[in-house]
Amino acid sequence: MKIEPKTLKGFRDFLPKEARKRQYVIDKLRSVFESYGFEPLETPALEYAEILEGKYGEEGERLMYKFEDKGGRKVALRYDQTVPLARIVAQYSNGISLPFKRYQIQNVWRGENPQAGRFREFLQCDIDTVGTSSLLADAEIIEIAISSLEALGFKGFKVLINDRKVFSGLIEDSNKLPTIVRTIDKLKKNGQEKVIDEIVSAGIEKELAEKILQTLETQKPTDNINRLFDYLSALGISEGNFEFAPFLARGLDYYTSTIFEIEIEGYEAGSVCGGGRYDDLIGMFGGKQIPAVGCSFGFDRVIEAMDTLSLFPQDLQTTRILVTVFSPELLNKSIETCEILNKSNISCELYVDPNAKMDRQLKYADQKGISYVVIVGPKEAETNSVTVKDLRTSEQRTIPLDQLPTAIR
Amino acid sequence: MKIEPKTLKGFRDFLPKEARKRQYVIDKLRSVFESYGFEPLETPALEYAEILEGKYGEEGERLMYKFEDKGGRKVALRYDQTVPLARIVAQYSNGISLPFKRYQIQNVWRGENPQAGRFREFLQCDIDTVGTSSLLADAEIIEIAISSLEALGFKGFKVLINDRKVFSGLIEDSNKLPTIVRTIDKLKKNGQEKVIDEIVSAGIEKELAEKILQTLETQKPTDNINRLFDYLSALGISEGNFEFAPFLARGLDYYTSTIFEIEIEGYEAGSVCGGGRYDDLIGMFGGKQIPAVGCSFGFDRVIEAMDTLSLFPQDLQTTRILVTVFSPELLNKSIETCEILNKSNISCELYVDPNAKMDRQLKYADQKGISYVVIVGPKEAETNSVTVKDLRTSEQRTIPLDQLPTAIR
Repeated sequence: MKIEPKTLKGFRDFLPKEARKRQYVIDKLRSVFESYGFEPLETPALEYAEILEGKYGEEGERLMYKFEDKGGRKVALRYDQTVPLARIVAQYSNGISLPFKRYQIQNVWRGENPQAGRFREFLQCDIDTVGTSSLLADAEIIEIAISSLEALGFKGFKVLINDRKVFSGLIEDSNKLPTIVRTIDKLKKNGQEKVIDEIVSAGIEKELAEKILQTLETQKPTDNINRLFDYLSALGISEGNFEFAPFLARGLDYYTSTIFEIEIEGYEAGSVCGGGRYDDLIGMFGGKQIPAVGCSFGFDRVIEAMDTLSLFPQDLQTTRILVTVFSPELLNKSIETCEILNKSNISCELYVDPNAKMDRQLKYADQKGISYVVIVGPKEAETNSVTVKDLRTSEQRTIPLDQLPTAIR
Repeated sequence: MKIEPKTLKGFRDFLPKEARKRQYVIDKLRSVFESYGFEPLETPALEYAEILEGKYGEEGERLMYKFEDKGGRKVALRYDQTVPLARIVAQYSNGISLPFKRYQIQNVWRGENPQAGRFREFLQCDIDTVGTSSLLADAEIIEIAISSLEALGFKGFKVLINDRKVFSGLIEDSNKLPTIVRTIDKLKKNGQEKVIDEIVSAGIEKELAEKILQTLETQKPTDNINRLFDYLSALGISEGNFEFAPFLARGLDYYTSTIFEIEIEGYEAGSVCGGGRYDDLIGMFGGKQIPAVGCSFGFDRVIEAMDTLSLFPQDLQTTRILVTVFSPELLNKSIETCEILNKSNISCELYVDPNAKMDRQLKYADQKGISYVVIVGPKEAETNSVTVKDLRTSEQRTIPLDQLPTAIR
């Protein structure tokens, strides 16, 4: 039976060109995270289902990949990195000292309805500081988010900051608060009228719904926000880069005070990073409160924004040079050429088939985006020289072998 | 209901100390792979089950994680990286030019019976060259495996090399060959007597079984092996680092000629890398033969061997310095200190809680393995100086702030 080679809906293959971009972003982020003392953490793709169940609301129950393994255990695929972090903090309470500053860059799986920008497997990049309620930790998370974006080359961006506490005074019935917060979170997307309609459907009178939006409109920054802003300024963050955003709500229920999102100028698909303080979540397995603050990068959006703004380096290749093989007899000459390049710390690739026609080797280099091709034919071998062809300009010249490293540089 | 925080049997959490080691090895491997022109590839964790089914023998069917997703699709977790590579080559035949040299470093999942060194989730690091039958490609794979081990600091190691073709002449009934190969593969582990017994149970007469082992004992290298050895020598690989090993069999059925394994001196748990040529596998989805050669690192064994031989750098931390905060009033002085270090490209961590006692901050640095702690108290602030404490020696001295970067270096 012939089986059609295909990828599951919502899942993606990353061929080298895309995989390189992803690796570039991961390397940059890791390097920034580590420079602030954040440490790597890895948790398994599969967890006992009960660890994840009941933590992500109705949507989570619907979208989570769950199944029974061959030992009859109910297991689930990682849905986010925060619940596993909570498990880790409870499970290794002796091995982890607080405050625990960790980063985690792993895939998560959600059975989303595939649509533009929604995937069933996607990478999450999280940083979190666990075990301190100090507002300086909130400021540090925002500072790192900004440093990360700068390290990736972003210039115009704004951190929108709010305090979840501004919402709690809005209505008396605190049960309805999460719904209202989630509705207001979509204000920019859905517009004022629709938001009011939705608040009304949640069982709030229209007059009160309108008043809620008006109150937010004239909302002043809370003390918490003002102190946070002082910290951000003290940390050297330009005041043009952050602002109070009373309508910013964030979708997740678990935030307790600071919340923020970062928008990029010239990229309108949505925020590329968001986070906040969530003091009641991490302690869930241990039964005691453990304060925490963190943020998550929308990895796919970061890639898309960088593509839109042309922020990826032109040449993400590590090998820029293909040393071709003219014939099996001249293979040793090509190997010698590679050695001379390697000795000067220049990476090069030797074409793997000494019997391949030169045309094919040149085409290979071209398709792979290699800049220089080195040819050592009989004439070159005799005179201890090499011919270098620049594939971008098609120029070529023959030079003494020992001058090759300098010429390439 | 209180849920006990625990990890599934056979699955592992990697806390920072272990996660850093893993990352160190991955970075080194990637860097070597890329220097030879190998390109990154990522495939999804989940595949249509039919893509993976029937590819890994009986054991594979038994160990594979399979389930039905909410859309009723039969899906399976990645079991290795070779079948997904075969799918990729067939699916993107227009986007991938041959020879395709790719590396892939991703987790795979197998429901193994957990035991020492066996896990249900583990990282595979593969390099493969697809689309050429040139023996130079085989030599290159072995060269890269050696370079990788050298880059990780290994010194004493040996590449055992054989040709699967030496087995095909051993018996007439080619159906029994795979069983015999798998049995001989365990010669070192099980001993000659047990191997002969097992060959006999496969339906071979004892006399023939003994003859098979005798034949292998006096086996001469095939032409293929001799040419491969010539290539390895031409590539500059020391002859002490590789040898012909006629009893080397490799467990997997799919190899067609060159096979090899690398053993490390001083690490007896088994080979840390193995591979070979498999010309009939990659073409399975397209229905035409596509030759390929590659190898796979036993990531967990590499880590274990490096631990055994003390090959990890003493200090895998990126931040070696904690700048403490003496009091909320003196926070700005600590921030200033961080800025001065950062300007000299020295990473440092600012303690995140200005209200924490100094004792606690010092303990934090100690537990995290940080070498230097910087203290800016009222006296230091007044004289524009800082106190630097070396946590390894407990020595401390007070120096002018502007001399800090030099002092740290």
